[in-house]
Amino acid sequence: MGCNKAHATLATEVLLSADLRGVDSHGVARLSGYVRLWEAKRINANPNIKVIYETPSTAVVDGDAGLGLVVAPFAMQVAIEKAQKVGTGWVSVKNSNHFGIAGYHAMMALEHEMIGMAMTNASALVAPTFSVERMLGTNPIAVAIPANNEPAFVADFATTTASNGKLEILQRKNQEAPAGWVQDLEGNSTTNANALKSGGAMLPLGGDREHGSHKGYALGSIVDIFSAVLSGASYGPWAPPFPAYVPMPENMPGEGLGHFLGAMRVDAFRPASEFTENMDNWIRRFRSAKPADGYEKILIPGDPEREMESIRQQEGIPLFVSVVEDLRAVADKFGIRFM
Amino acid sequence: MGCNKAHATLATEVLLSADLRGVDSHGVARLSGYVRLWEAKRINANPNIKVIYETPSTAVVDGDAGLGLVVAPFAMQVAIEKAQKVGTGWVSVKNSNHFGIAGYHAMMALEHEMIGMAMTNASALVAPTFSVERMLGTNPIAVAIPANNEPAFVADFATTTASNGKLEILQRKNQEAPAGWVQDLEGNSTTNANALKSGGAMLPLGGDREHGSHKGYALGSIVDIFSAVLSGASYGPWAPPFPAYVPMPENMPGEGLGHFLGAMRVDAFRPASEFTENMDNWIRRFRSAKPADGYEKILIPGDPEREMESIRQQEGIPLFVSVVEDLRAVADKFGIRFM
Repeated sequence: MGCNKAHATLATEVLLSADLRGVDSHGVARLSGYVRLWEAKRINANPNIKVIYETPSTAVVDGDAGLGLVVAPFAMQVAIEKAQKVGTGWVSVKNSNHFGIAGYHAMMALEHEMIGMAMTNASALVAPTFSVERMLGTNPIAVAIPANNEPAFVADFATTTASNGKLEILQRKNQEAPAGWVQDLEGNSTTNANALKSGGAMLPLGGDREHGSHKGYALGSIVDIFSAVLSGASYGPWAPPFPAYVPMPENMPGEGLGHFLGAMRVDAFRPASEFTENMDNWIRRFRSAKPADGYEKILIPGDPEREMESIRQQEGIPLFVSVVEDLRAVADKFGIRFM
Repeated sequence: MGCNKAHATLATEVLLSADLRGVDSHGVARLSGYVRLWEAKRINANPNIKVIYETPSTAVVDGDAGLGLVVAPFAMQVAIEKAQKVGTGWVSVKNSNHFGIAGYHAMMALEHEMIGMAMTNASALVAPTFSVERMLGTNPIAVAIPANNEPAFVADFATTTASNGKLEILQRKNQEAPAGWVQDLEGNSTTNANALKSGGAMLPLGGDREHGSHKGYALGSIVDIFSAVLSGASYGPWAPPFPAYVPMPENMPGEGLGHFLGAMRVDAFRPASEFTENMDNWIRRFRSAKPADGYEKILIPGDPEREMESIRQQEGIPLFVSVVEDLRAVADKFGIRFM
C-alpha cells in the first residue's frame, strides 16, 4: 500500500498480536478490509500523524486518515510521555481508522509500570435501549494493569453483550445467537444471528432494560464521546463504516474515527512496588475464589488470551481457509510471493 | 455525631441529592446506617482529610475514616484543582467510608466545564463469573459530561445487573427478582430476591458468561483496583462492610474503603464551546433515534434522574414509613426535635 517500513512493521505486529491472543476477528483476517479502505481512498498509507492541541496531561492527535493500527500506538506513546512528566497522560484522537485490538494499545503502558487504557468508536451497529436505530459501534474498552510476579490484569471487551467477532462466527457456522445478543428490525430480541442483514441491531451489554442494557448503552456512549466528541472525530451514527462498500454517512460532524488512550504511572499514586505487590495479592485472592460446581478456577481478565498466546507461540496460528484465500488475493494484488 | 457544621451540611446535601434524583436507596434512608458505623467507631466524625501523595495530575487522599459523603467531595475538589493546572486530575482515596450517590461527586466537575468521574469499591456482595464466592461490591461508576444548551450527560450505575437498592425494593415487597440478578449458594441463577441471606450473591452486569458477565466482572474489578489498590484501601472481599453489625474482615490488606475521582477540562482537548456544542448535537441526535414500538423516546443517561429531581423539587420527597421511623429514632437518639 506504500506504508513506510516502520508503519508496516507496527501494523503487522498489532494484527498478529490479535491472532496470537485468540482474537481472530481483529487479526490478519481484517487485512483485506484495510486494503479495500485504502483503495477507496479512506486510508492514507503515508499519514502525517501529529499532536494538534495539548496541555501537560492531555493531547489531541490528528491521525491524518492513517491506519488506526499505527495512529493509536503513536497516540499511546504521547500519553506515556505525558504520564512520565506529570503522572498521567490522556490522548483523544481524530481522523483515524479501525485500530485493531484495543488490548495491544493499552498493554503498551505495562513495560513502563503504568496502567494503560484504550477505547475507540466504530461503525454504528448497536441500538440504544428502547431504540431500533443503530447509533453506536461495539465501542470496546481495554484496561491493562501491571502486577509484580503475576501476569498483568488485561481487560479488553466490547460494550455489547457479545462482540461482533463472536456474532460473525455464528453467522459463518449458520448457528443461532443466544437471546440478548441481537434484535430484529422491530426491536424484538431474536436468535437470528443474521438479523443485522435485515435491519436489526446488536444490543448493549445487559441485553434488555431489566438486565441493565441502559448501562451498556451508557458505556458505549462514554467511549463514543471520549473518542470522538473530545477529539473532533465523527461520532454516533456518523462514525465511518469499516466495510469500504458502505457509503460514508452524510453530514459527518467530525473527521474520521476517534480513539481515546490513557496512561497512569502507578508510582503517581504510591510506590510502584507497593502497588504491584498488592496487585499480586489481588490476583491470587481472586484466582482462588471458590468456583461453582463444574468449574475449576476463577479467571482473571487477560488469562484466556495469555494462555492462547502461549499455545499459539508454540503451535502457530490456525487460519480459516477463507482467510488464507483472502491473504493470497492480497498478495497477488501487490505482486508479493505467497508463502 | 459531632461533625463540624460544614461537614454536616455537605453530607446532608449529598444524601438529599440522592433522594431528589430518585435514588432513594442512597438518600436519608441510609442515615441511621452511618450513625451505627459511627457508634461502632468505624466512622470518625472529625476526620483530618488530607493529600498524602501527589504529582501534578494525581493525588492520594487519606480520608482518616471520615464519612465518605465528605471525603469524596474533598478528593473531587483536589482533582478539579489539578485539572485546572495541568488539564486533568485523578485522585484515589483510602481510609474512607460509603460515599453515597456516585453521581453527586462526578457532577461537581460540570460547573467547571470539566468531565467528572467517580467510582468506589463497596462491601463484597458480587460473585465473579464461574464463582460462588462474594468478592466484589456493586462498585458503581459515574461519568458526568457537560453540554451547552442541553442538560449534561450523567451516567451513574452499579457494575452489576441491578443495583442493591433495586434488589432491596423487591425484598421489601416480597417479590421475585428477574433471572440474572442473583445466584444461590451453588451458583445457580435464582429468582429468590432474598438469596443473599442464604449464601447467594449478586451477579456482575451481563448476568452469565453467555451474556457477558465477564465484562461486568472486569468493570467491577477495575473500579476496585482504581479505588483501593491504587490508594492503599482494602480491596475485593476485604472491603469493609456497610452494616455495622457485620464484623470487619480479617487480615485487611489496606485501610478502609476506597474511591477514585477524576476531572478532565474539556478545553484541555478542544475549545470548550466546540466541545459543548458537539455534545448538544450528540444528545439531540440520540434523543431523536427511532424508538421501538411502545416507546416514546430514547433516554440520555441522566434524563430519568433529572426529571425526578424536577418533580421532587416541586412536590417533595416521599418517604417509606419505615424510613420516617428510622429518622425519628435518630432524632430521639441525639435529642433533636423531629418535624
